Amino acid sequence: VAVYTHLGAEQLASLLNEYDVGDLVSAKGIAEGVSNSNWLIETTQDRFILTMYERRTDISDLPFFLGLLDHLAATGCPVPKTIHDRNGALSREIDGKAVALIEFLPGVSPSAPSAAQAKAVGEALARLHLATASYPEKRINDMGAAHWPAIAAACGDSALATIDPSLPQTIRDHLESLLSEWPRALPAGVVHADLFPDNVLFVGNEVSGMIDFYFACSDAFAYDLAVTHAAWCFDRKGQAFDAELSHALVQGYQKIRSLTPEERTALPVLAKGASMRFILSRADDWLNTPEDALVERKDPMDFVRRLEFYDRMGDRAFS
Amino acid sequence: VAVYTHLGAEQLASLLNEYDVGDLVSAKGIAEGVSNSNWLIETTQDRFILTMYERRTDISDLPFFLGLLDHLAATGCPVPKTIHDRNGALSREIDGKAVALIEFLPGVSPSAPSAAQAKAVGEALARLHLATASYPEKRINDMGAAHWPAIAAACGDSALATIDPSLPQTIRDHLESLLSEWPRALPAGVVHADLFPDNVLFVGNEVSGMIDFYFACSDAFAYDLAVTHAAWCFDRKGQAFDAELSHALVQGYQKIRSLTPEERTALPVLAKGASMRFILSRADDWLNTPEDALVERKDPMDFVRRLEFYDRMGDRAFS
Repeated sequence: VAVYTHLGAEQLASLLNEYDVGDLVSAKGIAEGVSNSNWLIETTQDRFILTMYERRTDISDLPFFLGLLDHLAATGCPVPKTIHDRNGALSREIDGKAVALIEFLPGVSPSAPSAAQAKAVGEALARLHLATASYPEKRINDMGAAHWPAIAAACGDSALATIDPSLPQTIRDHLESLLSEWPRALPAGVVHADLFPDNVLFVGNEVSGMIDFYFACSDAFAYDLAVTHAAWCFDRKGQAFDAELSHALVQGYQKIRSLTPEERTALPVLAKGASMRFILSRADDWLNTPEDALVERKDPMDFVRRLEFYDRMGDRAFS
Repeated sequence: VAVYTHLGAEQLASLLNEYDVGDLVSAKGIAEGVSNSNWLIETTQDRFILTMYERRTDISDLPFFLGLLDHLAATGCPVPKTIHDRNGALSREIDGKAVALIEFLPGVSPSAPSAAQAKAVGEALARLHLATASYPEKRINDMGAAHWPAIAAACGDSALATIDPSLPQTIRDHLESLLSEWPRALPAGVVHADLFPDNVLFVGNEVSGMIDFYFACSDAFAYDLAVTHAAWCFDRKGQAFDAELSHALVQGYQKIRSLTPEERTALPVLAKGASMRFILSRADDWLNTPEDALVERKDPMDFVRRLEFYDRMGDRAFS
């Protein structure tokens, strides 16, 4: 986790002059997000997060992401709203890179979530799904099921085997059946698609913020719940499943939005798919990150264990 | 620049319980300092910086550093005071590493300081020197003149030559004369010894904070001014000297504390020595940092240019 770009105080002060937010008082580069640079900015009026989009984030998607934050904030979801500049623009440019100023939200991310927090995040996710129904924009999920074969092929079996000798076969074993069983007609809309505990802020057991919407896209709501399930209900290595967190998460979700029978039935395959998505993105990152880089490489095998758990347990993972 | 250690929200909350500072509201890993991990912490009462000492900082020196902050803050210097825990301790341990909670100070570091800011930092440095007179602790300057030959020898000529073919000869040319001319009887006390613009916070042209005291040590006051001169009065590469900043810095210093004739005379050799100190520490870091690490390697040659400038200009660099 690193700040990629240096921004001088003078550059920051002149950027802030383009907004009606007061004068610069303090700016700290913060270690948040993995592909953007972020600063915690204090002005004479308030605090803000400044994000500079370094890579991965397709700039043409920024209106989708930043507009989504505004839409969700307006409907009462705990997401940071975008600060518009004096001309109403959602983003600006510094040194040829896009930057956006967003609201600072209080709260901390749990490293060992409680059942009460899992329930609260289930509720918040369901509210987010209800709120995106009225967001008119769409964005293809470029980490969605249709793209998995290409990502696996781009990694290549021999490279995948350097991560773990069993990995190419595991991916092959599951990819075909996943794609053939993949449900295509579930209720859908804009989803977060990456709601790990890192991306949720809590004050006590209340969700004070959902952040990092840079994978948000149009997909099945139940797939988003499955991603959240895979992200919240296991220890980091995917070795220990926590049935209490699982129950609390699904119950919290359904308290706000009932799953249809089709969604309920699809959860095991969706959760296997969510695991496959993180196996593939982590494998791709792993193979493209130098071994001695300071960024932590995330082990794809943590999600192989989740995939195998969901495969073994089927519907019982959600009871 | 990176946060080295992950600290979970639960660990942070329980750490803060050992202090009388309110409850945890927000925590962001910040990219500050090069050898420690730092977090900007918000509680229900106030904001703080939490520092975890990773390496380089000798833990046995912590009482010196943290006691110095308290001493300086009590005399009105703009430095962050140390927050003591409920038992009065200046530091605690997490996972076997020392941590300290210090005051958060507003302000930003200039990347292109103005003359008014150079004057203000000169004044602040002189006030710091007057204030340390009553600080009873001592600490040997382990980056001081007596240690330079050993650092150069540890690097080795052939390794130094990989940085720049001229570097071993440049060091040899200056090291002996520097040590023979080095003034030994100048007014001395505890000095900052690393007061780069990065380590000074401003609100407008007022110094709101001097930070990062982890090289503070007992040495000549005029050497500290020479370090600050070398750090502030050139462009980053050491190619362009700014006479206006130089004049403002020395004038600001002398407004608060007059240099003795011996100190005034010694400034050129002290500034060459300050340049040598950063040539050697940067060379040592350079040779011990992998080429593809995400941390920026600082070029020792930036200070060779300063050394040669001071050698060429002598007293005229301070007029």
